[in-house]
Amino acid sequence: MDFRGRDIISIRDLTREEISFILDRAEEMEKSPPGNVLRGKILACLFYEPSTRTRLSFEAAMKRLGGEVIGFTEAGVSSVAKGESLIDTVRTVEGYSDVIVIRHPREGAARLCAGIADIPVINAGDGSNQHPTQTLLDLYTIRREKNRLDVDVAILGDLKYGRTVHSLAYALGMFNARITLISPRGLEMPREVLSDIKKAGAEIQEVTSLEETLKGIDVLYVTRIQRERFPDMEEYEKVKGAYRLTADMLRDVREGMIILHPLPRVDEISPEVDSTKHARYFHQVKYGVPVRMALLKLILEG
Amino acid sequence: MDFRGRDIISIRDLTREEISFILDRAEEMEKSPPGNVLRGKILACLFYEPSTRTRLSFEAAMKRLGGEVIGFTEAGVSSVAKGESLIDTVRTVEGYSDVIVIRHPREGAARLCAGIADIPVINAGDGSNQHPTQTLLDLYTIRREKNRLDVDVAILGDLKYGRTVHSLAYALGMFNARITLISPRGLEMPREVLSDIKKAGAEIQEVTSLEETLKGIDVLYVTRIQRERFPDMEEYEKVKGAYRLTADMLRDVREGMIILHPLPRVDEISPEVDSTKHARYFHQVKYGVPVRMALLKLILEG
Amino acid sequence: MDFRGRDIISIRDLTREEISFILDRAEEMEKSPPGNVLRGKILACLFYEPSTRTRLSFEAAMKRLGGEVIGFTEAGVSSVAKGESLIDTVRTVEGYSDVIVIRHPREGAARLCAGIADIPVINAGDGSNQHPTQTLLDLYTIRREKNRLDVDVAILGDLKYGRTVHSLAYALGMFNARITLISPRGLEMPREVLSDIKKAGAEIQEVTSLEETLKGIDVLYVTRIQRERFPDMEEYEKVKGAYRLTADMLRDVREGMIILHPLPRVDEISPEVDSTKHARYFHQVKYGVPVRMALLKLILEG
Repeated sequence: MDFRGRDIISIRDLTREEISFILDRAEEMEKSPPGNVLRGKILACLFYEPSTRTRLSFEAAMKRLGGEVIGFTEAGVSSVAKGESLIDTVRTVEGYSDVIVIRHPREGAARLCAGIADIPVINAGDGSNQHPTQTLLDLYTIRREKNRLDVDVAILGDLKYGRTVHSLAYALGMFNARITLISPRGLEMPREVLSDIKKAGAEIQEVTSLEETLKGIDVLYVTRIQRERFPDMEEYEKVKGAYRLTADMLRDVREGMIILHPLPRVDEISPEVDSTKHARYFHQVKYGVPVRMALLKLILEG
Repeated sequence: MDFRGRDIISIRDLTREEISFILDRAEEMEKSPPGNVLRGKILACLFYEPSTRTRLSFEAAMKRLGGEVIGFTEAGVSSVAKGESLIDTVRTVEGYSDVIVIRHPREGAARLCAGIADIPVINAGDGSNQHPTQTLLDLYTIRREKNRLDVDVAILGDLKYGRTVHSLAYALGMFNARITLISPRGLEMPREVLSDIKKAGAEIQEVTSLEETLKGIDVLYVTRIQRERFPDMEEYEKVKGAYRLTADMLRDVREGMIILHPLPRVDEISPEVDSTKHARYFHQVKYGVPVRMALLKLILEG
Repeated sequence: MDFRGRDIISIRDLTREEISFILDRAEEMEKSPPGNVLRGKILACLFYEPSTRTRLSFEAAMKRLGGEVIGFTEAGVSSVAKGESLIDTVRTVEGYSDVIVIRHPREGAARLCAGIADIPVINAGDGSNQHPTQTLLDLYTIRREKNRLDVDVAILGDLKYGRTVHSLAYALGMFNARITLISPRGLEMPREVLSDIKKAGAEIQEVTSLEETLKGIDVLYVTRIQRERFPDMEEYEKVKGAYRLTADMLRDVREGMIILHPLPRVDEISPEVDSTKHARYFHQVKYGVPVRMALLKLILEG
């Protein structure tokens, strides 16, 4: 399977076989990191929105493989302040680097860049649209912790605006997971996304009660209620904290049930959950590095 | 020719022979990059003004040679916020690095720093004054694309405030180019700059019509109307867009005529020009890396 | 002496023997830098407050040893803008790195992080509390320049809010220095700090006149009146400039007397002092690199 030069814009551009292949390579990366295979290569990080996790994770991945990183972390510092178009910025930056990672507030920005640049482009989040490496690390975490992907999984929280969960549900569908969706009224998963996920291969149901669901699942995936996606602050205040996971809710869950979260969290998971054996969200963060190492190596070196 | 330890503040500090020598080394860099010759060396980037292009280009150049980069990208994040003088910042940073690249809004700032620092200083733009590595990459692009520097060149746009064009015209004069200057009324090249360029060796004329000039030139150098240099916004609005290059203006130009632009552009070049064979501004961006690699190596290692 | 995995939060966590050991290693680092002993290691810099000096010094130290650096330089650019807790940020970042350096405006923040992270944490300043690597480089400078630490030292300026001087005085006490404290009324060293320093082993006296003290000392340590620590701007304006060191005050000082300052300075030392043989504050800055190299190597590799 040859990924050299390939753009990674949406998880939907990857087949089930390709995803499994990437996860296999990531597992090898985690077990025995290959050293400086990307020596002399430069990753350009174009972050038009704030991010710690994704940016630092990509930087760490590139540097662990001996590569270098350049870029900017907010548009204000760059030539964007002089009125430069995204297209010209991409054409410029590809003159300095071997692969571009871009986060941008506008849907479709990453696909646009990939169409322009001669070097590969990885989407690190475009608005509330796609964030494929998050999905890959979510899948990696589940497979790494549960040894399979056809799990019973519940996805909790903002399923309307949360960009990570649409891709995750779709990808889990490809691996025939049984998915329960739990969300506050008004934040349900959009109908067309739901229909897509079913077509991908998922058994899927929607409920409103978290507590009943908890007993029958292998994986609980919690998401943040993203304030910055709400046009109306009143609506935000109403649903915030509606579904908050606490340690005493975990009494009757399956022995090996794991809790994931793309982070950052605000109030969705009570801190005392962190020390239970179910909490895996900080493992999940860590797994982002081997997943991105694998992807960068595949794209740049094969 | 020994450049070790030398400051690069203005293109006027370099002789014709020195410029040719640097361009020769840059060409070698482009053809066969020498690997990690700057391993263990640290470049400090002090950017008191926003920049993508120049900063990332220097970073890429240093990293392609195995060197490291430290620095800051806006004054607010640094000790400058605590009221520290430029002089103390330079004295501090030279304790951590082997070469300093500085961009600063005040004319003369780079020369001031060079006088203080014991390590070499490269001017990456001081107000509307000097930006010598931009000039070197402009020259490199012309020589690389046209095989010579005694070309027929037209320079278009804001010739009053644009810092890159004064240096470029002067340097082209040293190589006996024939220069046509085209600018909106009120944005003509200052008389004393003009007189200097003539003394350097250029044949020079000033016109106001772009279209007549286009037929007889080898190189068209377009510049941005820099909003941030205008004291008066009304004056800016009047001249903005007065000289906008479109694809249909290119019908009768010479076969190998090339179009350059220091970038970022705003409205001066219509996007459909990008796909013509004349557009070379994104090549120009890319050539900044070998030029800066050559310069960094010459200054640090000889 | 094994420092591997150890947190460096306060100079008070180190014994006199440990401090001497670190300074010895730093001297070796300065004389013969060991090359890429930290190849493959990643330092995460979490700077919640502006800093040039400390951040760039740590970055230079890590890179001089072949290591890599990731991080952020102001909270606004990071996930902190999404409301993430310091604790979650630390848990995240430790998934990407081998050692954390943190600067934070809140007292106790670094100790909190060290309690959470499985990897070592170095405090690079928490509010007006502790900044142990500054103290180590201050001690290194004195020992390097005077060959001993049981010196006659005067500490001048804001001894109430200045975070560096409390630690420095305490550490000098451990080495039996004779300390004279000079401060404007209202900015005296807090009683409990004073009592601690005496217990540590210092001979200590408080005076208000700088000029009388100058003749009898080996080291003058000047500190900035830190505007940002003053709750009341009027109080600040009153004391600012009250104790300003000028070149003509240095006529009758000891031959080898040295002047130090943690920098940035504002008005406390007149620029003409810089060219006297007594000025050592820019040497002091430079010594930060071998001290931090030694510390990073000891913590990561032993």
